[in-house]
Amino acid sequence: MEFLPAQAETLNDILRWRRDVRHFRTDPVAEPVIDRLRGAMDMAPSVGNSRPWRVLRVMDPGKRAAVQAIFERCNHEAAAGYDDATKAEYVRLKLAGLRDAPVHLAVFTDTIPAEGRRLGRRTMPETLQFSTVMAIHTLWLAARSENIGLGWVSILEPAAVQAIFDVPRSWVFTGYLCLGHAEFADDRPLLHRTGWQYDTPTHWQDC
Amino acid sequence: MEFLPAQAETLNDILRWRRDVRHFRTDPVAEPVIDRLRGAMDMAPSVGNSRPWRVLRVMDPGKRAAVQAIFERCNHEAAAGYDDATKAEYVRLKLAGLRDAPVHLAVFTDTIPAEGRRLGRRTMPETLQFSTVMAIHTLWLAARSENIGLGWVSILEPAAVQAIFDVPRSWVFTGYLCLGHAEFADDRPLLHRTGWQYDTPTHWQDC
Repeated sequence: MEFLPAQAETLNDILRWRRDVRHFRTDPVAEPVIDRLRGAMDMAPSVGNSRPWRVLRVMDPGKRAAVQAIFERCNHEAAAGYDDATKAEYVRLKLAGLRDAPVHLAVFTDTIPAEGRRLGRRTMPETLQFSTVMAIHTLWLAARSENIGLGWVSILEPAAVQAIFDVPRSWVFTGYLCLGHAEFADDRPLLHRTGWQYDTPTHWQDC
Repeated sequence: MEFLPAQAETLNDILRWRRDVRHFRTDPVAEPVIDRLRGAMDMAPSVGNSRPWRVLRVMDPGKRAAVQAIFERCNHEAAAGYDDATKAEYVRLKLAGLRDAPVHLAVFTDTIPAEGRRLGRRTMPETLQFSTVMAIHTLWLAARSENIGLGWVSILEPAAVQAIFDVPRSWVFTGYLCLGHAEFADDRPLLHRTGWQYDTPTHWQDC
């Protein structure tokens, strides 16, 4: 399989227009799209092919409200950690789309999966969570290619989220995702647009 | 920006043909390709737009040999942890392409980057490493679209790798990557082909 320059360019466009979306329309995501996203996630790399991602689709309004409450508390606490000028800037940012996004996914990592037979993770057990992170990123890109936006909410206390969901003790919380149709598209991160943090290039060092 | 079904299909093909490559040809990767890969990595998502990935391109034969030696030791120790039958199966697997890959990258995460102004990571500091992991995955997909293979070597002791490289104390080791032209292409993981671990589908649960 040899890819052509036009195909590499398509990937580049998807990477460029993928964004952390926090402004969602409330209309649902079609089920066939959800099925394709789940299928894409299964193509993600994983340490020892261990496939440790575990996904809960959160439908229950009570559970959704509980997550939202944790976000509000953690966001308030984060704001309090800044000096006054920065705090004023921080509180103007919209940092989650929990209220409007039609699809909520709580993503966990099984820390003792049978799959993979422990291969590749003895010295770096964190590679299990890393595998789930790459699966989330795969989902993100596949969603963008289907014109669906995704937002990753990290302003959450993991233990509090874990307490909402009845999951096995071996699962750790990796990320909470909002999906839906985005209110607008952009090829720059919102944090760049607002001036919170501009995009900066990475320099590679030779050694 | 609205993507068309053919573009989503292209991403699907790239995801399907991306593999953890361990069989490399020794001929170099062209510098313009390396430049494009670095540019792709800069489009990865990161918590608070913190862009914490730090990349060393390892050219020095002594440093490469030192990494290879750590891999050999860790791989030997991992093999010793299995019962005899599994061990026999394990030692037949080729788990790294360090000897032949023309490009070696040691990837670290800055745990106290100025960029992002601490946003989004107060309750989940692990999201900094997660950001680097998504940058590595971005590099992986971009490489595949350029017909370059990438292998992620995780059978390494982080402290030992860290000791080889003169990096700031705030950097943690995230992953060691081999890049080059692959000896063959496949749309299935090698661990699936060899029977070590078959691909299994993920079930999402509603709650």
